[in-house]
Amino acid sequence: MLAEIISVGDELQRGDIVNTNAAYIAKQLRQFDIVTDCQVTVNDQLTAISKAVRLAIGTYPIVIVTGGLGPTADDGTLTAVAKACQTVLQQSVAQWQHIQQIFKHRQIPLTASNQRQAQFIGQPLANHNGLALGSWYETDDSLVIVLPGPPAECETMVIQEVYPRLQAKFGAHESLPSLTLHFLGRPESLLMKELASIIDQTDQLTVTSYVKPKDIQLRIVATQPGLENELHDLSQQIIDREHDYYLGSGEDFDLAQQVVQLLQQHSLRVTAAESLTGGLFQSTICSVPGASNVFDGGFVTYAPAAKESLLGVRKTTVDQFGVVSSQTAEEMAIGCRKKMGVAIGIGFTGVAGPDDLEGHPAGTVWIGLSTPYGTISRELNLAANWGRQRIRELSVQYGLQMIYQLLTK
Amino acid sequence: MLAEIISVGDELQRGDIVNTNAAYIAKQLRQFDIVTDCQVTVNDQLTAISKAVRLAIGTYPIVIVTGGLGPTADDGTLTAVAKACQTVLQQSVAQWQHIQQIFKHRQIPLTASNQRQAQFIGQPLANHNGLALGSWYETDDSLVIVLPGPPAECETMVIQEVYPRLQAKFGAHESLPSLTLHFLGRPESLLMKELASIIDQTDQLTVTSYVKPKDIQLRIVATQPGLENELHDLSQQIIDREHDYYLGSGEDFDLAQQVVQLLQQHSLRVTAAESLTGGLFQSTICSVPGASNVFDGGFVTYAPAAKESLLGVRKTTVDQFGVVSSQTAEEMAIGCRKKMGVAIGIGFTGVAGPDDLEGHPAGTVWIGLSTPYGTISRELNLAANWGRQRIRELSVQYGLQMIYQLLTK
Repeated sequence: MLAEIISVGDELQRGDIVNTNAAYIAKQLRQFDIVTDCQVTVNDQLTAISKAVRLAIGTYPIVIVTGGLGPTADDGTLTAVAKACQTVLQQSVAQWQHIQQIFKHRQIPLTASNQRQAQFIGQPLANHNGLALGSWYETDDSLVIVLPGPPAECETMVIQEVYPRLQAKFGAHESLPSLTLHFLGRPESLLMKELASIIDQTDQLTVTSYVKPKDIQLRIVATQPGLENELHDLSQQIIDREHDYYLGSGEDFDLAQQVVQLLQQHSLRVTAAESLTGGLFQSTICSVPGASNVFDGGFVTYAPAAKESLLGVRKTTVDQFGVVSSQTAEEMAIGCRKKMGVAIGIGFTGVAGPDDLEGHPAGTVWIGLSTPYGTISRELNLAANWGRQRIRELSVQYGLQMIYQLLTK
Repeated sequence: MLAEIISVGDELQRGDIVNTNAAYIAKQLRQFDIVTDCQVTVNDQLTAISKAVRLAIGTYPIVIVTGGLGPTADDGTLTAVAKACQTVLQQSVAQWQHIQQIFKHRQIPLTASNQRQAQFIGQPLANHNGLALGSWYETDDSLVIVLPGPPAECETMVIQEVYPRLQAKFGAHESLPSLTLHFLGRPESLLMKELASIIDQTDQLTVTSYVKPKDIQLRIVATQPGLENELHDLSQQIIDREHDYYLGSGEDFDLAQQVVQLLQQHSLRVTAAESLTGGLFQSTICSVPGASNVFDGGFVTYAPAAKESLLGVRKTTVDQFGVVSSQTAEEMAIGCRKKMGVAIGIGFTGVAGPDDLEGHPAGTVWIGLSTPYGTISRELNLAANWGRQRIRELSVQYGLQMIYQLLTK
């Protein structure tokens, strides 16, 4: 079934705020096989809202309107929707009492306009995070849902009020099997070319690739329910083909979390010596709850002298091979591992840019990885124009991948 | 003048990603008094894109299309736009050579589909952050601008390629004076209450507050051109009133950049010892180009034992006062400053959560700041439900604020 989402607000139109509601609602609707065919943003004008709603209910069986339910003069969404639906506004006595009580408790003078927040059309939807009611308005042809604009209010209303009503109306739904696979180290175009012969075998499953800041994601979706086995077979073939670049699966997959879990399973601790990444690797490890089980601490060694004094990197190594070299990266990894007395040490050195360093362009990175069984290093040649931050973030991802591969392959 | 923004992508429609480009573009267009009357999101289907573009060029003089310029099969935006505009795709020889060079440098095999990224209609727009060209296509009635989807590519193309062309086409515009002020350490409601008497003095200027992840921002906008003096006077009154919480001004204000500049002006170097922030402070300093002028390196001391071994924090201090204490924070700050032999040391210790630590809830943080002239510390009581990441990010901001105040107040 197809739906349209209409987001209302001058602040959206002007670009003062980013529209997170549309994405949130679209994602939730997918669970009922409702596809958001169109997302539209309109300004606060009653005529603009009414026109958009009229157009939408003539085209789509489900129309969701969000924003403009507040108490101020520019909040006229409900009036405009009621007009488009040719119905009248109703007033919830209970909600109006509730609003009055809250204002009394907070000792804030109430204004008459607050009464608008107790209005609805069709059935009221309770607002667990704010004052304005939502609306659920059904006719034979269409379903119109009106939601508040603040994301916390909108999202809670979707989960607590809309979700159960959709389930009651459309019954249990059989969702399409899907899976997201994550890869790192292969450009999107090459990955898709290498996988073409595998993907082309089937027309029961669609495979779409996305370039994300931290990895390349392949989303596999079945064209009909019940294709779990086919989905599994295809994803396994894809993983086997791109084994060296495969990180893991799932929409919420997080490589750092995975690495922390793996380290914990193996009772191993990690430390780091960071130059161009400046602490970002360790900060990423610490972003995972429970990081203290695998990480005691480590070093940021930005200046060459700090590499020598804190890690024991030899001055002759830096002089002979340069800071941006496999030798320096490996000595950093060995140095931090020994200083912290843990099993795994990782060292990051390279050029974040914008300027070149030792004749290397921005994006040239060496990562050293040291264990008691040996030390390896890997060179990255990231694009200089990706900018300082992305080069640093990707270096961390590649570092995590090296540890991941060490522990899994 | 009115414009429509068409965002292309199944991933937007499904809600897999939030559409930040539309807001960014709408905001930039306002500088030319171009109002985004309509924002629409469509899926990857060529017919859907073509239909949306045809409708838009019949309605609005300016149409901006973003997304779907990649090398894979589902990236058909340019083909669809060309069809809607009844024009033909052109190929940039220079861009194709550039793409080939990049793949050669990165030692990655090129695929034929990458050639599509060198295509354009009308005039090509250079992509300083990626491979796919944008397009600037003008007819007598309408202007169609095609931009890449990845935000880093889209935003840079808007600033570097679209902005100057709009300026050339529509001439200099008289914009409304405006200023953004940044504050930290005062809740929004209290800040606005304290400023009410100042703000209410004028109806020539509007003041709007925004809660952002890193600070509270007040945006002051004049209601008409030529009110620069009034804007300056009001903002000065606001800054004077909230002096202790004021960070700086400007839309692009970045506290870390400010701190790095101040340190450089004073020829001072900084180091850090990070527990709950796990390297995030140092990583933030290193995100500023030229950080090497003020930062040599530092420590991540997550475990109590690492605080002792790397920084010389006394075991008796930790035993007596706890890890989450002013005493530990100050000894961390002193320890890292002495180990690195620099002027300023900062220490972060506290509870990132989700679990309590030593009886303190998540959000309890101590920051120590040490110079040769003395050591101070500050306690933060951030809301536990803000979550691990925001507690860590805000701790870094407050630490930067302490150094900022040390050097300016």
